[in-house]
Amino acid sequence: MSPKTNRKMSPVSLAQVVIDDGFWSPRIETNRIKTIPHEYKQCKDTGRIDAFDLTWQSGEEPVPHYFWDSDVAKWIEAASYSLATHPDPELDALLDEVIEKIAGAQQPDGYLNVYFTVVEPDKRWKNLGMWHELYCAGHLIEAAVAHYEVTGKRRLLDVMCRYADYIASVFGPNPDQRCGAPGHEEIELALVLLYRATGNRRYLELSKFFIDQRGQKPSVFQRELEHLSDEDARINRHFFDKKEGFDTSYCQDHLPVREQSEVVGHAVRAMYLYSGMADVAVETGDEELLRACRRLWDNVCRKRMYVTGGIGPSRHNEGFTKDYDLPNETAYAETCAAIGLIFWNQRMLHVDAEARYADIIEKALYNGALSGVSLDGEKFFYVNPLASSGDHHRQEWFGCACCPPNIARLIASLGGYIYSENSADAYIHLYISGQGELEVAGTQLIISQESRYPWDGEIEIKVDPAKAAEFGLNLRLPGWCRQARLWVNGEEMEIPPLLRSGYARILRRWQAGDVVKLDLAMPVERVVAHPNVSQAAGCVALSRGPIVFCLEEADNPVPLHRIVLPRDAELTAVYDKELLGGVVKIQGEALLVDDSDWDGELYRFQAANMRPYSLTAVPYYAWDHRKPGEMRVWIRSL
Amino acid sequence: MSPKTNRKMSPVSLAQVVIDDGFWSPRIETNRIKTIPHEYKQCKDTGRIDAFDLTWQSGEEPVPHYFWDSDVAKWIEAASYSLATHPDPELDALLDEVIEKIAGAQQPDGYLNVYFTVVEPDKRWKNLGMWHELYCAGHLIEAAVAHYEVTGKRRLLDVMCRYADYIASVFGPNPDQRCGAPGHEEIELALVLLYRATGNRRYLELSKFFIDQRGQKPSVFQRELEHLSDEDARINRHFFDKKEGFDTSYCQDHLPVREQSEVVGHAVRAMYLYSGMADVAVETGDEELLRACRRLWDNVCRKRMYVTGGIGPSRHNEGFTKDYDLPNETAYAETCAAIGLIFWNQRMLHVDAEARYADIIEKALYNGALSGVSLDGEKFFYVNPLASSGDHHRQEWFGCACCPPNIARLIASLGGYIYSENSADAYIHLYISGQGELEVAGTQLIISQESRYPWDGEIEIKVDPAKAAEFGLNLRLPGWCRQARLWVNGEEMEIPPLLRSGYARILRRWQAGDVVKLDLAMPVERVVAHPNVSQAAGCVALSRGPIVFCLEEADNPVPLHRIVLPRDAELTAVYDKELLGGVVKIQGEALLVDDSDWDGELYRFQAANMRPYSLTAVPYYAWDHRKPGEMRVWIRSL
Repeated sequence: MSPKTNRKMSPVSLAQVVIDDGFWSPRIETNRIKTIPHEYKQCKDTGRIDAFDLTWQSGEEPVPHYFWDSDVAKWIEAASYSLATHPDPELDALLDEVIEKIAGAQQPDGYLNVYFTVVEPDKRWKNLGMWHELYCAGHLIEAAVAHYEVTGKRRLLDVMCRYADYIASVFGPNPDQRCGAPGHEEIELALVLLYRATGNRRYLELSKFFIDQRGQKPSVFQRELEHLSDEDARINRHFFDKKEGFDTSYCQDHLPVREQSEVVGHAVRAMYLYSGMADVAVETGDEELLRACRRLWDNVCRKRMYVTGGIGPSRHNEGFTKDYDLPNETAYAETCAAIGLIFWNQRMLHVDAEARYADIIEKALYNGALSGVSLDGEKFFYVNPLASSGDHHRQEWFGCACCPPNIARLIASLGGYIYSENSADAYIHLYISGQGELEVAGTQLIISQESRYPWDGEIEIKVDPAKAAEFGLNLRLPGWCRQARLWVNGEEMEIPPLLRSGYARILRRWQAGDVVKLDLAMPVERVVAHPNVSQAAGCVALSRGPIVFCLEEADNPVPLHRIVLPRDAELTAVYDKELLGGVVKIQGEALLVDDSDWDGELYRFQAANMRPYSLTAVPYYAWDHRKPGEMRVWIRSL
Repeated sequence: MSPKTNRKMSPVSLAQVVIDDGFWSPRIETNRIKTIPHEYKQCKDTGRIDAFDLTWQSGEEPVPHYFWDSDVAKWIEAASYSLATHPDPELDALLDEVIEKIAGAQQPDGYLNVYFTVVEPDKRWKNLGMWHELYCAGHLIEAAVAHYEVTGKRRLLDVMCRYADYIASVFGPNPDQRCGAPGHEEIELALVLLYRATGNRRYLELSKFFIDQRGQKPSVFQRELEHLSDEDARINRHFFDKKEGFDTSYCQDHLPVREQSEVVGHAVRAMYLYSGMADVAVETGDEELLRACRRLWDNVCRKRMYVTGGIGPSRHNEGFTKDYDLPNETAYAETCAAIGLIFWNQRMLHVDAEARYADIIEKALYNGALSGVSLDGEKFFYVNPLASSGDHHRQEWFGCACCPPNIARLIASLGGYIYSENSADAYIHLYISGQGELEVAGTQLIISQESRYPWDGEIEIKVDPAKAAEFGLNLRLPGWCRQARLWVNGEEMEIPPLLRSGYARILRRWQAGDVVKLDLAMPVERVVAHPNVSQAAGCVALSRGPIVFCLEEADNPVPLHRIVLPRDAELTAVYDKELLGGVVKIQGEALLVDDSDWDGELYRFQAANMRPYSLTAVPYYAWDHRKPGEMRVWIRSL
């Protein structure tokens, strides 16, 4: 349905992919049987779902919050994706029930928002900057599209089309319409999905309208602020007011988006905006938007991203600060921001067909996003620091609960990130065992993968076209891989001549039964940060394949800053099936700064001694599952 | 006048000491002709002085603040000390004028506090925990004693005796008296000064009463809080309320002082309390209080003090956190806290006659306290971080202006820190050129010092007793000194047999014209912090003699965290008379982490290269006098 003219390939959708993977299948199962029911229960128990009944009365507790709708929406989306790969009549019925409640909350004019219907109905559209009205609409639209695409049911889609039609009547360039933009971006990308699902170009145009409103002078948010009471404006002032002038970089409103080159402000907002920009560009051929996306990508991925794929170091604005500022213990690195980074890179990957985007997807997926959910699927990090003194732990839920359903919808939709296709090429971006059904060069094609990834780099790929055909099979050579080998039907291929934008492109006439073997060397690596990152100066992070490791006190019962890793120390990777659900751990002979000869002094002139110390590092995503204690990604290095 | 039974020696007072020193004389002169007039003008311009006229009317701006009185008091104290060594009829007259204003503000019952007389008279003594009423009284008492001792004028002394008498009638153990203690300690030490100046034991007893009220259960502050309105209690709750129970560690009220072993809470409060405890112990022979002081000293000096002598790392409570927690860029290290550390150590020094206390005085004096005032004497640091990204600068004044007059009174009274005496011994604690008049072994004694300290460790000391006498001359061997030589009348002495508690004690029959030469080797040293100090891990600080150095961007126009100092790099000290008023700077061949071969990556596997780099370090106390830029005390080390 979607036009493909402005991107080099299309993702192979979730429904076409089966995951049968040692690493991911248990997580997807946990997501299905633990996380999704747990989140439903939380939404139910906290009143988020029943709030759509619109029975709330003034004075009742809890008061619905203006972002509640979005939590339910993301849960619907996660549950729908789960149905796509695992039919479940009970969940299907539950979805219908929740959707009926939502449908019942729609107002005669199409409007649909609990808070601004029952709590402060006079404030509809009054503070787009901070009140998340369009953000909630966006998530409900995403939910509607997901539910429709998975189940074929139009109930929520029709409701949301009515709401989107109403929004499109309120906002727009015509004299009888309002200027405006969402303070928290989200609806931009959702409207493009709705356009793709319905073919109604009005949604695409509204998305583009919102995107181009951003950064105009005077700011739409500044104009809005002038009509707010002091009380209502307080929340805005916290972020927008600066001593000199009005600074809306918090929500990327400091410049027209086409002129932006620097990622600023709230990180999740930024990621959703850039995703929407890429979507609009793909559908409209808007090269200017893509150029802005590529500049912004350079900035975030080359100067403002943690080694875990986490982004947004500051708690203050839940977002970005300045180049190379990546504090560890105070890192905010919201789970949603890492997920947003994946969304955006998934879009850029299809625009440019360059493996660097898939590298970022993989980095965030296996590290800074996956850390957001506990191994048992029922506890969540909102904030993902790279060091902890032992007092940061996952929680069952949050008052502001954006992250739990976000990680649930990501894991439930993982199948959609593995393969892509165009008329002449098949792509494998992620090495996850299972299979995908593609259509390439006029033939149905089944690609099957088998590996112990991410613990091992040996991957067997079976290529089964329905009929023999010539096409390129593009295998991503991960950015972390320094040595790869490749065999086709047992015959080794030289890789350099095959390289294209980070993929090994094997162009041949494929036929049923062809087998490709890829061996990605996966030694333990010492990662070094750019010299400008002061917070990682003198340190290395350990990685192996896509996995970033950390030290935890549970394995290393010493002050972690006293562990020093010599440059030539041998590091070995050991799979431990008992540990943290089965992980590779890294062990090595390091040094420990010794305090046994310090006789009560706080300072002295003699350098401290070191003694041998055997360190153990575990995957970062799995930290905080044992006795609380220190954690640290960056290890002092000699 | 003061009994000396419970301390091993007495300080030689300011009036008996002449400073004629290359380092300090210009600072004392700047303090006299710039700082003291500047602070008078600030107190005048901001309304602090005229507030004592009690003409303030509701609605007028500015509203006197409940700590204003203390700023004027500390100015009086500084100005009085200045008169002691530099007669100045104009300043003398100005002091009389200000003192008359203060006297005029005294109420019929003796009470004296601007805020609680004109702004909220109904709130007298209502919130001792947070409203600084007794703190202001303490500073006015200190001012009164200083003015009386320097000028012999009793005007302010009499006023403050009346006030103290009134306070002693309100607070005390009798059934018609109130329990209570100052939330901000200060009056405890002041009352002992008043006792020493007047001989009235009631003041000593009141000080002891306040000290022992602290830490009782239920807390006096908790009981007080129960009678406050919600509005008035808000400021307390910020510090006292914890989820579980009432935590008054903010003002050292968590335990009876005699049971305390850990320095907690607001650092200035803590230092003033411990000073008062030592004073009371000295006057009453209370060994239990001294044992607590020694335990607290161990904790702060061995676990909670910056290498600069700064204390109190946290902005939140302006105070202490936990052992070995010494962050650099966010260090609070209030100027007043370093000064308070000097006050307390001055007291402990006289109790125990151990050089370790003088080491701390010297460390704080030349570094973390002196940094509090600009070279021109008219700008001040409240906060003294050990690293800066370039946005922390001295200011002309503060709304809460405790630090400027505190550093002024310290510098004006420096002469009082150099020498001590008892019946059998003379002590030199600080090597500051000039002379002191002592009385030892029944004779008047003039000790003259001549050196280029702190830039050079060669010190010539002339010993001139009025009549020949046998006594011990005790020369402090600084803790930082690893090699000292000593000559008496040209004959070298072996030092180890002379050592007593960190002093070289030369016991002989001294006669006029005796000359001692002390040579303290002063190489550049690399200071290493205890392995538990994570924020200094892998780093060294440079010191030479008592001076701690720092890197500034003005000398090192590179990101300072990229400078790495190899362990064997030679470091040379060079006196530069043009630099920062004349300082020794340190130069050395270090390394700079190179980014020229980083091709836009944020992370890579190959270690960064280093290239040779010539670093220059300057004394920490003199930082922030040139073009704003980065500063850093702890230098990465290999």
